[in-house]
Amino acid sequence: MIIDSHAHVVLDAASYRVMATLTGGRNNPRSMAKLPPDSVLEKTVQGLLAQMDEVGTDMQFLSPRPYLQMHSLKPADVPLVWARYNNDLIHAHVQIAPDRFRGIAGLPQFRDTSPAACIDELERAVSDLGFVGCLLNPDPMEGDGPPPPGLGDEFWYPLYEKICALDIPVLVHSAGCCHPRESYTLKFINEGSIAIMSLLGSRVFEDFPNLKMIISHGGGAIPYHIGRFRAGHIRRNQDFDAKLKRLHFDTCVYSTEGLDLLFRICGPDNCLFGTERPGTASVFNPEWGHELDDLKRVIDRIDWLTDEDRAKVYEGNCRKLYTRAFAS
Amino acid sequence: MIIDSHAHVVLDAASYRVMATLTGGRNNPRSMAKLPPDSVLEKTVQGLLAQMDEVGTDMQFLSPRPYLQMHSLKPADVPLVWARYNNDLIHAHVQIAPDRFRGIAGLPQFRDTSPAACIDELERAVSDLGFVGCLLNPDPMEGDGPPPPGLGDEFWYPLYEKICALDIPVLVHSAGCCHPRESYTLKFINEGSIAIMSLLGSRVFEDFPNLKMIISHGGGAIPYHIGRFRAGHIRRNQDFDAKLKRLHFDTCVYSTEGLDLLFRICGPDNCLFGTERPGTASVFNPEWGHELDDLKRVIDRIDWLTDEDRAKVYEGNCRKLYTRAFAS
Repeated sequence: MIIDSHAHVVLDAASYRVMATLTGGRNNPRSMAKLPPDSVLEKTVQGLLAQMDEVGTDMQFLSPRPYLQMHSLKPADVPLVWARYNNDLIHAHVQIAPDRFRGIAGLPQFRDTSPAACIDELERAVSDLGFVGCLLNPDPMEGDGPPPPGLGDEFWYPLYEKICALDIPVLVHSAGCCHPRESYTLKFINEGSIAIMSLLGSRVFEDFPNLKMIISHGGGAIPYHIGRFRAGHIRRNQDFDAKLKRLHFDTCVYSTEGLDLLFRICGPDNCLFGTERPGTASVFNPEWGHELDDLKRVIDRIDWLTDEDRAKVYEGNCRKLYTRAFAS
Repeated sequence: MIIDSHAHVVLDAASYRVMATLTGGRNNPRSMAKLPPDSVLEKTVQGLLAQMDEVGTDMQFLSPRPYLQMHSLKPADVPLVWARYNNDLIHAHVQIAPDRFRGIAGLPQFRDTSPAACIDELERAVSDLGFVGCLLNPDPMEGDGPPPPGLGDEFWYPLYEKICALDIPVLVHSAGCCHPRESYTLKFINEGSIAIMSLLGSRVFEDFPNLKMIISHGGGAIPYHIGRFRAGHIRRNQDFDAKLKRLHFDTCVYSTEGLDLLFRICGPDNCLFGTERPGTASVFNPEWGHELDDLKRVIDRIDWLTDEDRAKVYEGNCRKLYTRAFAS
């Protein structure tokens, strides 16, 4: 079974209108927007399934499109109403094709507000909607001011407590970015690096031994620059590689060389197949003869990986982490 | 000849005292601090030469230690006096061992002030002290507030004009970082990524066709994540790899896998040997049987590189870019 652990909903025209209305009318965003009619939802789902079938993906874990989460838009009700809408939309997808999708909750994070404010929606998504994991944005300020403390800080503990109680993994993934020097796509990568160093330099995994963290986009820059961090750890008689294994990573890295490095540094036991398809890399690469996000074909070509390695990356690791995804 | 293009001065006790006095007395930092006596300078230089000889480095290009540049410390005279001191210190090194060192100027950048304020000191360093290049910090706010515009912005043009007139390369390298969630060492990497995307998304190289930019630390995260940026460029019918070749990169990446990826993505024609020795990675790596910053041994072991490739990386590319370094 091929599980794409990193995929996002594709908004239909009606959903974009909901977003626009929320943005324009953000003085009074309390009224809950209605989902598109069944016929529209059905069409969106068929479109997604066709894209999955094209590359042999059996199941996608769907979360809100990260850069559209509006975490920094005032007032706090904007990201709240929008997160609920997105989670309901994802839930509708799963209802239509329950063998092909699982839901990953978006959280109504808001600027530098305590993430405790996200607990109710997380509880709803997991307990009422049957979601199996959640996104976590390390910088809900989205570049519009000083970010909250790093993920290793106690600031995040109320949310970690709930996450552990629910036994769900966290997919660390930033959202938008307001600063002109850093695109949201570049921020995904930089925030991944910052998240890793904050978590591994903290007491989080001592305080929450069952916390399961997946760093999206192949762990930002850390695998490429691991030598730099090994150095500091050797000095302190510590083992950075061992620490790194406390985390998981997805394979949203769109080059053969990058994926090869990811597997060599982080190990096939710690990597989950993910493509973000359809997304940034859904574009034909003439050199490969297929789209850049058709990553299974790339991983299949990495010849030092064993069949067992690939089985773990495509399915095994995901099943192990997402305990709720296949519960009967 | 083995040229280490990325190396920094090691401050002696007297120089640390100068820095401390400047920091403590920053209301009145105008008085120019004196360099340590010749005996101290001689000892420091001998220490550096010993470390170079241990790994077979013939020449180092010395710049100020980046994280100690104090670019965000108020008032502006603090980084100015300190940059001048560091440049004089480096000049003294070159005077003692002119066959082993070249000077790379630190600039008195100050928070979000126009880099035009750095031109006088750059002119002094190149014309009076014989320096052959300069550092450039993309975020002299050092995380203490919103950074200035990206390196692709016209904000930087007055400095680029001077740099082109002097025909010196720029080594892009951030300095300190005040925000607890991002260490200065991690910021080096993140700022490298931001710098690349800002430069390649701008008109800078059309407006300054002779501008020579070296992105330190192996180009931040960009080579590892090149697929992501290729995707956006393929969509616009552009070639990201071709654009990337407009830049140069140094080899301050301390793993075999990382260096292998750097050379495969950026190409041996665009990489300059650099180790930052002595620095972060001057620590014994039991797995290699030598220090992590003894990178020549690592590069020598990458078997697909040809002798010609290695000659370019160790010497040729550096000579080509740093036209003033070997002028008679």
